[in-house]
Amino acid sequence: MTYIAPTTEQLFVLNHIARIDAMAQHERFAAATPDMVEAIVTGIGDFASEVYAPLNRIGDTDNPKWEDGRVTMPPGFREAYKQFVDAGWGTIDGPAEYGGQGLPFTLATVVIEALGSADMGFTLCNILTPGAIHALMAYGTEEQRQRWLPKLVTGEWNGTMNLTEPAAGSDVGALRSTAEKVTDGPNVGLYRIKGQKIFITFGEHDLTDNIVHLVLARTPGAPDGTRGISLFLVPKYRLDADGNPTISNGVRCASIEHKLGIHGSPTAVMIYGEDEDCLGEIVGEEMGGMRAMFVMMNNARLMVGCQGVQIAERATQQAQTFAAERVQSALAGSADRTPVTIDRHPDVKRMLWRMRAQTEAARALIYYAAAQTDFGKLGDEAAALRAEILTPLAKAHATDIGCEVASLGIQIHGGMGFIEETGAAQHYRDARIAPIYEGTNGIQAADLVGRKLGMAGGEGVRSLIADIAHGAGDFPELADLAEACGAVTDWLEQADMPDRLAGSYPYLTMLATATCGWLMALQHQGARAALDTGDGHDAFLEAKIASTRFYLQQIVPAARGLAASILAGDAALPPIASAS
Amino acid sequence: MTYIAPTTEQLFVLNHIARIDAMAQHERFAAATPDMVEAIVTGIGDFASEVYAPLNRIGDTDNPKWEDGRVTMPPGFREAYKQFVDAGWGTIDGPAEYGGQGLPFTLATVVIEALGSADMGFTLCNILTPGAIHALMAYGTEEQRQRWLPKLVTGEWNGTMNLTEPAAGSDVGALRSTAEKVTDGPNVGLYRIKGQKIFITFGEHDLTDNIVHLVLARTPGAPDGTRGISLFLVPKYRLDADGNPTISNGVRCASIEHKLGIHGSPTAVMIYGEDEDCLGEIVGEEMGGMRAMFVMMNNARLMVGCQGVQIAERATQQAQTFAAERVQSALAGSADRTPVTIDRHPDVKRMLWRMRAQTEAARALIYYAAAQTDFGKLGDEAAALRAEILTPLAKAHATDIGCEVASLGIQIHGGMGFIEETGAAQHYRDARIAPIYEGTNGIQAADLVGRKLGMAGGEGVRSLIADIAHGAGDFPELADLAEACGAVTDWLEQADMPDRLAGSYPYLTMLATATCGWLMALQHQGARAALDTGDGHDAFLEAKIASTRFYLQQIVPAARGLAASILAGDAALPPIASAS
Repeated sequence: MTYIAPTTEQLFVLNHIARIDAMAQHERFAAATPDMVEAIVTGIGDFASEVYAPLNRIGDTDNPKWEDGRVTMPPGFREAYKQFVDAGWGTIDGPAEYGGQGLPFTLATVVIEALGSADMGFTLCNILTPGAIHALMAYGTEEQRQRWLPKLVTGEWNGTMNLTEPAAGSDVGALRSTAEKVTDGPNVGLYRIKGQKIFITFGEHDLTDNIVHLVLARTPGAPDGTRGISLFLVPKYRLDADGNPTISNGVRCASIEHKLGIHGSPTAVMIYGEDEDCLGEIVGEEMGGMRAMFVMMNNARLMVGCQGVQIAERATQQAQTFAAERVQSALAGSADRTPVTIDRHPDVKRMLWRMRAQTEAARALIYYAAAQTDFGKLGDEAAALRAEILTPLAKAHATDIGCEVASLGIQIHGGMGFIEETGAAQHYRDARIAPIYEGTNGIQAADLVGRKLGMAGGEGVRSLIADIAHGAGDFPELADLAEACGAVTDWLEQADMPDRLAGSYPYLTMLATATCGWLMALQHQGARAALDTGDGHDAFLEAKIASTRFYLQQIVPAARGLAASILAGDAALPPIASAS
Repeated sequence: MTYIAPTTEQLFVLNHIARIDAMAQHERFAAATPDMVEAIVTGIGDFASEVYAPLNRIGDTDNPKWEDGRVTMPPGFREAYKQFVDAGWGTIDGPAEYGGQGLPFTLATVVIEALGSADMGFTLCNILTPGAIHALMAYGTEEQRQRWLPKLVTGEWNGTMNLTEPAAGSDVGALRSTAEKVTDGPNVGLYRIKGQKIFITFGEHDLTDNIVHLVLARTPGAPDGTRGISLFLVPKYRLDADGNPTISNGVRCASIEHKLGIHGSPTAVMIYGEDEDCLGEIVGEEMGGMRAMFVMMNNARLMVGCQGVQIAERATQQAQTFAAERVQSALAGSADRTPVTIDRHPDVKRMLWRMRAQTEAARALIYYAAAQTDFGKLGDEAAALRAEILTPLAKAHATDIGCEVASLGIQIHGGMGFIEETGAAQHYRDARIAPIYEGTNGIQAADLVGRKLGMAGGEGVRSLIADIAHGAGDFPELADLAEACGAVTDWLEQADMPDRLAGSYPYLTMLATATCGWLMALQHQGARAALDTGDGHDAFLEAKIASTRFYLQQIVPAARGLAASILAGDAALPPIASAS
């Protein structure tokens, strides 16, 4: 089962939701002409399906191998990655002054979506590098940028993010890795890094000749908690006078994890400065690590949200293909007793439409969030605020959708879905990591009610709800949900923190569903208008009308019922004890 | 991480929901005294945690091995199974005239729950044997019963169910295996069986010295579809004159599957009569196979529903233990900045209470369904009808809960949950089969709206909804949901079959949630009364009050939103095509 990029759908969402045309009106993104956009979307679709998709199962079964501190990727991965770099797919939204194309982040999101649908685990090696680029652009010196960015932008070198330690997961501030400034000798000004980091995605591999680790650590005497954290750039190999990565740097991969899914992505335990000096460069100021981390993370959170879309798309394609071929039973209530393909049985249709509607909703949410980030860069402050509100919704809700859709994909296959060779099970396993990493979905919900809800005096959330209500159009279900969102938002704003947090997850789901409902309503109207004018994609447009209607009439009303959980408060959750 | 049977909870549900005391008032179940019930519940709890639980991970990693048509179980399984047989745990509800204890099926359900929580994959070898016993009791001759039942009842031999073929999954009537009657010679009256069966749970293993396959096949000239199917008993080894299984019988295991989960359970491709004559005995009449199959399946469906409880319980215990030990971050909104165990953070508490409430709801549903089966056997026709209605609810909804709870279990572990060694991932993988086998959950939903809804002129469903409404007590959310169930039931009864089927799954979920809500309300009242009288389990009773309140105030109201999907009808689900 291969992957075919949904290019018509992607272009439709870019136009109707991301407003890529409006971006191209600005000088900075003038290169994003309709022709260029279409060339990128179709080009990466072809590349992903031809080069990356065949590796998906290989990565799952023939895992990366750890030996003596080094990790070897399975056969075919180095070659595919080289093709990715050579074709310039890494450079889409990279800064133009360091070799990037300077196009909107939204287009880079489409590139990552296509690659990740083809092979979610492998594509992880691409989604953390932008975090390193952003951190250097925001806080690096010009000399650092000159040295590191050109090869990060092309992907010749990758970036990683090193936050987690055994006792510091969601609580980043608990980390213990240390960084001590070198005060004399040839390395003066650098920092000696010591510590252990876990769960480091692509922390070690043989795809590139260097790896650029962005590492959070604590300088001597720094205060406890997040205030005392600094960010360091720690290369696998330091650069020699010619700028080549030839100098060993005390970075060791102690092991890689045996995981439920994304087997194609080595998840490393990294040891810094154990047997040999490990030297890093500070990025920004001492104790400015958290700000820099958020710059890296915001981008990464949207990219993880995008993984929900990736796996949902892949699972949906596989299920549709299976259901269109598998013959089983005649239609109930029909006089014709000839067995039919299962995609004609009502409950299977329901599952397929649900998969499709959820996948399209998640895609719209991600593209919209990415686009608001781009508009924010163009100086639109309302868009920048909207992007802040959307980030936790996009990360958490799209990854929840990825899991749900992958599970429906198994169900449509029946017994075959449980057999590993079929491939549906891999999507289910792969999808399950996305609600966990880059801040668990619970952390996203806490971010929503703890930080985002109060932004701009509450205007960020309120203006979103107003837009949803305004956009409800022919769908009273959406107007109802927007009203319910408004009511629970009022309540949460008055609530104390434990009550807010107790309702945070259902609130995130409710608000994200309403937002998706709005984006689906916009697409519904867009599809109707396009059918009226006749743009030549009738089958696509008819399907879009059906999927958006399904979302608005079946998924949106179900979300209203979450209000009870939001309003129940922390008192409904007494301390839990093992009673048996 | 081990398993500790929740015996206080199990006894509470047996008393308040299954009404085991009322069963014991009948002569047939007089042996089910309170002392006997408690001895069984605590005894199997100890046995399961000591003997079965340690095998769970071994079965997952050190899978059964296929070689040359024979399957060898991993180390320790044969010994554990022998202990199970020797202790008599297989005989609880077996017919007394063939060596069983003749106790209620409800108690056998508790036995299977405990074993399956300890090791779900391994326990599969126990849950199909009763199907064989029931088929023989209902349709076998006295001579057949004498020959086969004593060792099936103890578990010295296991039974299997052979329905599925490559082109006959949910559509059992499409099967092609054949059975031709032997008309002369020493085997006259037996049938020559030929065919291939797939997905046969414990179709081959070395736990017992014989395996009794119940095989559906078609006799020469039999009509197409389910009407032409007959049921055969086909032993791995035929019995010699002394009743010993010594005669090879042309039964071969061609391979076992590589599955997402339940690795401890060998899932076999079985070939009958390929190189050697394979002889089977007919069970019942020619072309009476479907009736006999339903006898086997009803029991098996409840047992698969019970797997949802098993895995939910195990996942909940593991998550509670982890969350009570893992320290991360101070409480938000608290002046005390000391990091706390994560079970004190509101969103983690929400997940833990949700896991607990859903697990308890599923257990109540299964015990209640099992008890109605038992009361049906005692001549209570209303109970027998209720059991028919409950079977699809119990199978589908409890297995959906198993998947949801296992997924929450991973989430509570954060990154550790995605690492296989932690064990949470195994539950997530194991749980996923239960919504598929013994009739997919979609088939259960079709059974509900297609057959069960119309039973007794609709009285079966209506009386259930009336009981729910009557039992709502202090919970207006439940009264609302019961009313909504009544309204959608009215609509479904008038609807044609495609519309019914289009709404069948959300209807099943809504009705099952209402039923669970009622059973939770009964427990809520029972716990309050017991606290008032002071029965000495205060911590348990307080937790029960909290979990039932969580269910009624948070899960019940969310189910109301499913009405829109039920009423949308088949017109909302146009033919789906791959549009890209």
